[in-house]
Amino acid sequence: MTSAPLAFSAKSRRTPESPIAWFMAQALGNPAMISLAAGLVDTASLPAEVIGASVARLLADPATAKPCLQYGTTNGYAPLRQKVLSHVTGMDGVSASELNLSADDVMLGTGSQQLLYILSEMLFDPGDIVITEAPSYFVYHAVLEGNGARVETVPMDDDGMDIAALRTLLDRLDRAGELSKVRMIYTVDYFQNPTGLTLSAARRREMLDLVRSYAPRQRILILEDAAYRELRYEGDDIPSIKSLDTTNEFVVHAGTFSKPCSPGLKTGYAIMPSDLIEPMTRIKGNHDFGSNNFSQYILNDLLETGEYHEQVIRLRGVYREKRDAMLDALNEQFGGRDDVSWTKPTGGMFVWLRMPPHILTSPDSPFTKACIDAGVMYVPGEFGHIAGQGHRPGSEARLSFGDASPARIREGIRRLRHAADAVAPAVNRSAADSILVAAGS
Amino acid sequence: MTSAPLAFSAKSRRTPESPIAWFMAQALGNPAMISLAAGLVDTASLPAEVIGASVARLLADPATAKPCLQYGTTNGYAPLRQKVLSHVTGMDGVSASELNLSADDVMLGTGSQQLLYILSEMLFDPGDIVITEAPSYFVYHAVLEGNGARVETVPMDDDGMDIAALRTLLDRLDRAGELSKVRMIYTVDYFQNPTGLTLSAARRREMLDLVRSYAPRQRILILEDAAYRELRYEGDDIPSIKSLDTTNEFVVHAGTFSKPCSPGLKTGYAIMPSDLIEPMTRIKGNHDFGSNNFSQYILNDLLETGEYHEQVIRLRGVYREKRDAMLDALNEQFGGRDDVSWTKPTGGMFVWLRMPPHILTSPDSPFTKACIDAGVMYVPGEFGHIAGQGHRPGSEARLSFGDASPARIREGIRRLRHAADAVAPAVNRSAADSILVAAGS
Repeated sequence: MTSAPLAFSAKSRRTPESPIAWFMAQALGNPAMISLAAGLVDTASLPAEVIGASVARLLADPATAKPCLQYGTTNGYAPLRQKVLSHVTGMDGVSASELNLSADDVMLGTGSQQLLYILSEMLFDPGDIVITEAPSYFVYHAVLEGNGARVETVPMDDDGMDIAALRTLLDRLDRAGELSKVRMIYTVDYFQNPTGLTLSAARRREMLDLVRSYAPRQRILILEDAAYRELRYEGDDIPSIKSLDTTNEFVVHAGTFSKPCSPGLKTGYAIMPSDLIEPMTRIKGNHDFGSNNFSQYILNDLLETGEYHEQVIRLRGVYREKRDAMLDALNEQFGGRDDVSWTKPTGGMFVWLRMPPHILTSPDSPFTKACIDAGVMYVPGEFGHIAGQGHRPGSEARLSFGDASPARIREGIRRLRHAADAVAPAVNRSAADSILVAAGS
Repeated sequence: MTSAPLAFSAKSRRTPESPIAWFMAQALGNPAMISLAAGLVDTASLPAEVIGASVARLLADPATAKPCLQYGTTNGYAPLRQKVLSHVTGMDGVSASELNLSADDVMLGTGSQQLLYILSEMLFDPGDIVITEAPSYFVYHAVLEGNGARVETVPMDDDGMDIAALRTLLDRLDRAGELSKVRMIYTVDYFQNPTGLTLSAARRREMLDLVRSYAPRQRILILEDAAYRELRYEGDDIPSIKSLDTTNEFVVHAGTFSKPCSPGLKTGYAIMPSDLIEPMTRIKGNHDFGSNNFSQYILNDLLETGEYHEQVIRLRGVYREKRDAMLDALNEQFGGRDDVSWTKPTGGMFVWLRMPPHILTSPDSPFTKACIDAGVMYVPGEFGHIAGQGHRPGSEARLSFGDASPARIREGIRRLRHAADAVAPAVNRSAADSILVAAGS
């Protein structure tokens, strides 16, 4: 006898399939493929020896040997929460007390992703409005979709999110009587995933001022996703938006040890307004009553011994070389063309490539197929854009220099160029325009 | 200028404060207190050396040194998923293929708790019905409450959930036209948290048969929470309900490495019907795109080398001694009284104590206060019961023998007895009944 069909919750029905899982599986399962798609970190520089020594220290010390293998607390290991706070405020050149912050305002999670997830389920009911950059981090878009949030987007330029456009959007929502639904602005403000762009210092202040101006009527939070902050390869660090939030009222600052140390330890953090902690703890308690305690002890040890900082310095050298390899290769392969452009990130792992409009980058496009045949993968740019939010460019791609070696990055870009030539032989702009006109686009 | 108040989601407003966090913090922060409340495992037997050796092996082997520190996959490390399947079916004395199962039907999580959480958000909309034992695991009750599920409960006896009562409940719900809302039966069927009771083999089959009988009209899932299964101190193992579900259609089997190995590694698993995997992967991807990879490699190594099984055997000895200490002490302190009773678990970590009706165990009761003053803590029994579900006993308590040493367990039970004497000098049943009658209860 056949069973009746199983019903799934509204949330389950809303939750989209995540493209990242497929990309990661492809990259892990097919060593011949050069993946410029996956968000994996550089494998060769993963700190196996450093972590081995740290574990040996922890397990030899009676003060930590057993506690690191026992249950921890829901919000995370207190010494690590304290160090996270010192670490972030140290980068910002401020004291925690100037920002009205204590270690109680820090929560540790299973990567920063889990904290983004919990924050979202804690704050958003279906129909609530969240403002993101266009394009933005596609996994977080999926979280928003799962929660039924309505996403409004703001364009970016070389200085990050366009604050004038944000002001116009908020004003429009206010006049439409929808201000009360606006819950959050999400920004990946250092070397953004997917574009590699950074929000300028001036715009950080403007964004916070704008949020403050609405505060008497609507408290809009800023979720500052600083996952890539420490991976800077040139120029000076820019203070976080959090460091401007002196009343600790508007900014949730999310960070992670995955990119600057080891994703296998899967530990992230959020520093946030005090009134968010208690409701967040309740939901986190139901998720897991505390993330992996063993990894929290390891990271606490690495911060304490200074090994963490040495690793970050090593990584900067490794990724700087990869970034240079990618930018050089793009210049070699596409440098003469005025119909191909790309960002020049000063940190992070991503370059945003804009191909000519007749070369589409969607998953089933001829170009994408030609790339996979040639043995190279990228993330289609449309994954970073929300459908129905005005113009959704069809010829963009996220290229990651995180995983592949410099030589493979160069070879990957060469394959990309060959695939482009195969599906659409290089033409000058006027010829390309003629093709588009002929096709009725 | 004051900010407008922040709004929280319906889910956040529904999510209750979890008592477990408070209890764990008390136990961790106050070494003089004998906690018979916390669900911590025995600290002394945590396998620090074994895990140290495992990490050294993993980080010395080029095949694992870097991959264990890299991102994993959303569903978990494939070799560990395969070993989990062999491990569970091995205990059940069946092959995976007899149960229509493959490693693709296994998902790894941040403890089994995270998998319980994701399963719940995937399946339940507010108003959906979930059936639990009375009493049941209070953290899972909080998850159900957060999802707005309506909880219906079934009483237990020494053989676990009363299946005749379950049948009556389902029949009543069916006649009330509510069958379509019944989504799941949740059972902790080995050495239950909180009572220590085990569902008998005969009743396992009856439960599954009952679910099967409704299947053509409503597919009701059984969530078999087998967290304590491996910690058996006498008698033979009982096959899981999952091992009876030969079509892999009705039972989600959840297990964990926290209790039988190390909670610090925070890794659990679920084996489930194939059609649940894809929607579960989507939500898990949004949570964290994969739990802690490093811990998954460690556990895979411990299963491969046989160290895991040796640890379980060691733990059985350790906990058997603790259980004996608790049962002996209860007998010494309360053995002569016919108004005090307790369960005699053959495994797990919990004894369920029933005090006389005039000794209330609620958090603010005189007895609880006297216990805390005397330096002993338990979990009030009412935490395991759902308010408004018929009789909610007020004089029960969960006693854990997981954390404290045998000597401290004995001392804890002695303190419990003194606290009981202090608030209500031992009386015989007829005198107690007179008091109740006089109080109009």
